[in-house]
Amino acid sequence: MPHIQLPEGLPGIRGAMAFRPETARPLNDLVERLLHGPNSLTAGERELIATYVSYLNDCHYCQSIHGAIAAASLNGDEELVKRVKADFQHAAISEKLKALLTIASKVQRGGKNVTAEDVERARALGATDVEIHDTVLIAAAFCMFNRYVDGLGTWQPEDEAMYRERGKKVAREGYVTVSKEYLPAEPVGAATH
Amino acid sequence: MPHIQLPEGLPGIRGAMAFRPETARPLNDLVERLLHGPNSLTAGERELIATYVSYLNDCHYCQSIHGAIAAASLNGDEELVKRVKADFQHAAISEKLKALLTIASKVQRGGKNVTAEDVERARALGATDVEIHDTVLIAAAFCMFNRYVDGLGTWQPEDEAMYRERGKKVAREGYVTVSKEYLPAEPVGAATH
Repeated sequence: MPHIQLPEGLPGIRGAMAFRPETARPLNDLVERLLHGPNSLTAGERELIATYVSYLNDCHYCQSIHGAIAAASLNGDEELVKRVKADFQHAAISEKLKALLTIASKVQRGGKNVTAEDVERARALGATDVEIHDTVLIAAAFCMFNRYVDGLGTWQPEDEAMYRERGKKVAREGYVTVSKEYLPAEPVGAATH
Repeated sequence: MPHIQLPEGLPGIRGAMAFRPETARPLNDLVERLLHGPNSLTAGERELIATYVSYLNDCHYCQSIHGAIAAASLNGDEELVKRVKADFQHAAISEKLKALLTIASKVQRGGKNVTAEDVERARALGATDVEIHDTVLIAAAFCMFNRYVDGLGTWQPEDEAMYRERGKKVAREGYVTVSKEYLPAEPVGAATH
């Protein structure tokens, strides 16, 4: 039962976004640019970082939907997503991504936990400054999204098939496009820049 | 010493934003709509929530600059900002804002800590659903901003006068306007919606 009266039938962050389109737009723009826009990290790699942080924050909705988007971006490999959550050091991912997941897990506990050694290790394994920046911001952003979704007590279905289907759609079309389903069109000129 | 090569001379989040304008724009839009846009909560009340969460997360830059923006929005009352950080239950603020600060402090520790009783109490003291929503999202957003600023090891000056002057300017002009100082103009049509 959500803490406030959210539109019915929209799970997780979608109900919260439909309730408040004013803030939904920059949130969708942010996640689009971080996870779906052009990047030297693949969409699958970025979605794995988002999924792992959401798992650490114990947010059922976010780890389920981003896990599904990650799997859809990784040729449907749901086992790899589960393995990353349970024990990423022994998952079949690159050493660079392991170093970035270590940075993300430090950010999840608080930004000051990231050390120069963590960053040096990622860099030695091929991470660029932009990739390190984006890892820190993805981890930080999911500390926001997870708290937003859980702090409002949103409806978070258990139905795995729902997340799987939605995950495929978001992986294909991106966040801003799918958000048009539940956000009213913004009047021309209403953007703040 | 920042963990990655950020533009010099720009403290805190400004250096990170100048490094990555693609993500700076939605971040500025979000904070503009949450803290500076039209709202039944005053700018001073919303900045106090942002300052308090940044204080709980021990982010020097964010609690200093938002504390300064809060003070500028509250007729220069820096003592009130200090009092809210130290012991908001005994500060000269409304009972409704105290109830919202309680919700914000729960979100800071994790969204699941917010209880139906916390929300009921805020509502009984006059908080609307939108105000409760915005409180949860402001608290969640500062769990992101604080981690972003500290996770990159940004430069965070001690100079109080710098924060005071900047706080007055942001309180007056808003986030998107002042960000134009260090963000390149975005090409027409580049927005994702």
